[in-house]
Amino acid sequence: MKCEMCNLSNEDKRWMLFESDFWSVYLADKQDYVGRCFVLCRNHRETLSQLDPMEWNDLRSVITAVETMLKKELGATMFNWSCLMNDAYKATSPAPHVHFHVRPRYASPISLGNVIFCDGEFAHHYDNLRKDCLDNHSKELLFNRLKAAAANHIR
Amino acid sequence: MKCEMCNLSNEDKRWMLFESDFWSVYLADKQDYVGRCFVLCRNHRETLSQLDPMEWNDLRSVITAVETMLKKELGATMFNWSCLMNDAYKATSPAPHVHFHVRPRYASPISLGNVIFCDGEFAHHYDNLRKDCLDNHSKELLFNRLKAAAANHIR
Repeated sequence: MKCEMCNLSNEDKRWMLFESDFWSVYLADKQDYVGRCFVLCRNHRETLSQLDPMEWNDLRSVITAVETMLKKELGATMFNWSCLMNDAYKATSPAPHVHFHVRPRYASPISLGNVIFCDGEFAHHYDNLRKDCLDNHSKELLFNRLKAAAANHIR
Repeated sequence: MKCEMCNLSNEDKRWMLFESDFWSVYLADKQDYVGRCFVLCRNHRETLSQLDPMEWNDLRSVITAVETMLKKELGATMFNWSCLMNDAYKATSPAPHVHFHVRPRYASPISLGNVIFCDGEFAHHYDNLRKDCLDNHSKELLFNRLKAAAANHIR
């Protein structure tokens, strides 16, 4: 079974915000919550239990870097982190690859270019069926802003 | 603001499966997915970024212990981990307290006493509105079994 996450396309990789020794951080394709990111283990690990101590320690710094970036740049109030990996189990021979989703959550509306984003479910579980709320142009602007922030302030 | 999780009632504490230096593991009140647990930081930390290195390292062992317990005892196929903390933000002065939810997920139905549990959403996002599927008696049996497993095999 070929692991999709070990073989990201160049189009997928285009959205990488920064890398640490063991993790890569991407702006998520679907911006259901503005600033949603995706944190991917650079080694193929199938469960959290399989992460080695160096990968686990590095993850702590990456989480802090991501939370700091999203707070400073977007004014996120708090964060929903999840490590699910359900999709991998749709395959006959699952090859899950450890990754995390982080959805920044906002107590008040934020503006991003000409988009006003309102987190209507704040203080409640994220809406997993929420639609992407950024067009391609706004997503590109957001990506450039977060990438610059990551390069300037975080690493 | 009084933190609810720093002040658990004796009834809440009754469901504790095991404790490590920095974390407590409880069988979740709502058994929407059989074996669902709740992993609570013993110190009051408001965000993942606030966890200190000792708490973070200890969490890695606790995750492994929980996954091992749920695989051995219930035959869980994989796990959905999340750290959300949305509820705390319903308060005027939020006092979030770092905790994780873990929902074991099952590729095939499992039986537990006279209950057959079928994970109808396997390979998809957990259903956050799923009802509790264990009555009090079955929950008690499950708790005793997991607690014994934790005491015998894990620590």
